Amino acid sequence: MKRTSFKEWQCSIAQSVEQIGDAWTLLVLRNAFCGMRRFEDFRDGLNVASNILSDRLRHLTDVGILQKVPDPNDGRRVEYRLTDKGMELYPLLVFLLQWGDKWMPTEEGTRMTLVDRHTGQQLAPIRVTNMGGTEIQATDVSMEPGPGIDDRHHQLATRKR
Amino acid sequence: MKRTSFKEWQCSIAQSVEQIGDAWTLLVLRNAFCGMRRFEDFRDGLNVASNILSDRLRHLTDVGILQKVPDPNDGRRVEYRLTDKGMELYPLLVFLLQWGDKWMPTEEGTRMTLVDRHTGQQLAPIRVTNMGGTEIQATDVSMEPGPGIDDRHHQLATRKR
Repeated sequence: MKRTSFKEWQCSIAQSVEQIGDAWTLLVLRNAFCGMRRFEDFRDGLNVASNILSDRLRHLTDVGILQKVPDPNDGRRVEYRLTDKGMELYPLLVFLLQWGDKWMPTEEGTRMTLVDRHTGQQLAPIRVTNMGGTEIQATDVSMEPGPGIDDRHHQLATRKR
Repeated sequence: MKRTSFKEWQCSIAQSVEQIGDAWTLLVLRNAFCGMRRFEDFRDGLNVASNILSDRLRHLTDVGILQKVPDPNDGRRVEYRLTDKGMELYPLLVFLLQWGDKWMPTEEGTRMTLVDRHTGQQLAPIRVTNMGGTEIQATDVSMEPGPGIDDRHHQLATRKR
């Protein structure tokens, strides 16, 4: 993962991109949300080289998205589990599924449907809404820089659109 | 962008990751949602090398997230604008902002607040909901493979959690 670091960029999007803006990282997370926990399962399930996987698991553990815990069936082994911070990435994964499904469909039909276990209905599309639940478009949103922003991002937020 | 291609992976998350699972790509999109359109503005705003930026803009244009249009003020120049497919990535950007803000806060305070222009209120947090608008946790969602899925992802979706 040798690329420019965005750690010092005082923009919350850049902070997130620093931690999860990587293809293998996102696919590791996808599999973790499917209940995958062991190194070998990730390696085989993703068909990824061990060094790439080790790097991503170490990164995700370092930033507190995954945590290592002893395997309950074999205390000599470790499992990788989503932390609360990791669990809160679920809307991101659902969004990637829905957007990919809509814009890169297959001729054969849907690849996967996400269903509310309790009602049997499909999940609603992920949307941006106001506090009243009304959908909001990007053009209806204004950006208000706060005290934690840096100069570059203050400029970006306040540029004429 | 030399990495494993996920184009043939019949999973909609992998399809999305193939197109936007890259740090610079996500930051180009962030700036595009802030109204940025010109090569030079992206280059200076992101402080990114021209070859990296060219590569990402070409990619985003190739997959139909951005489109090149003549600059209305100077027909010899081009602008990069979000397509409908690109505009629909807005929830992703809002999510990255909200998650980054929550989990990687600054001591100085919020970096940026997104506000509904019409009500002046903050946007609601991006959530996974059922059709009735009730929030749903990952553990309440079941995955139902459809006809477009491939064997590997069918296995992933149906593994015991």
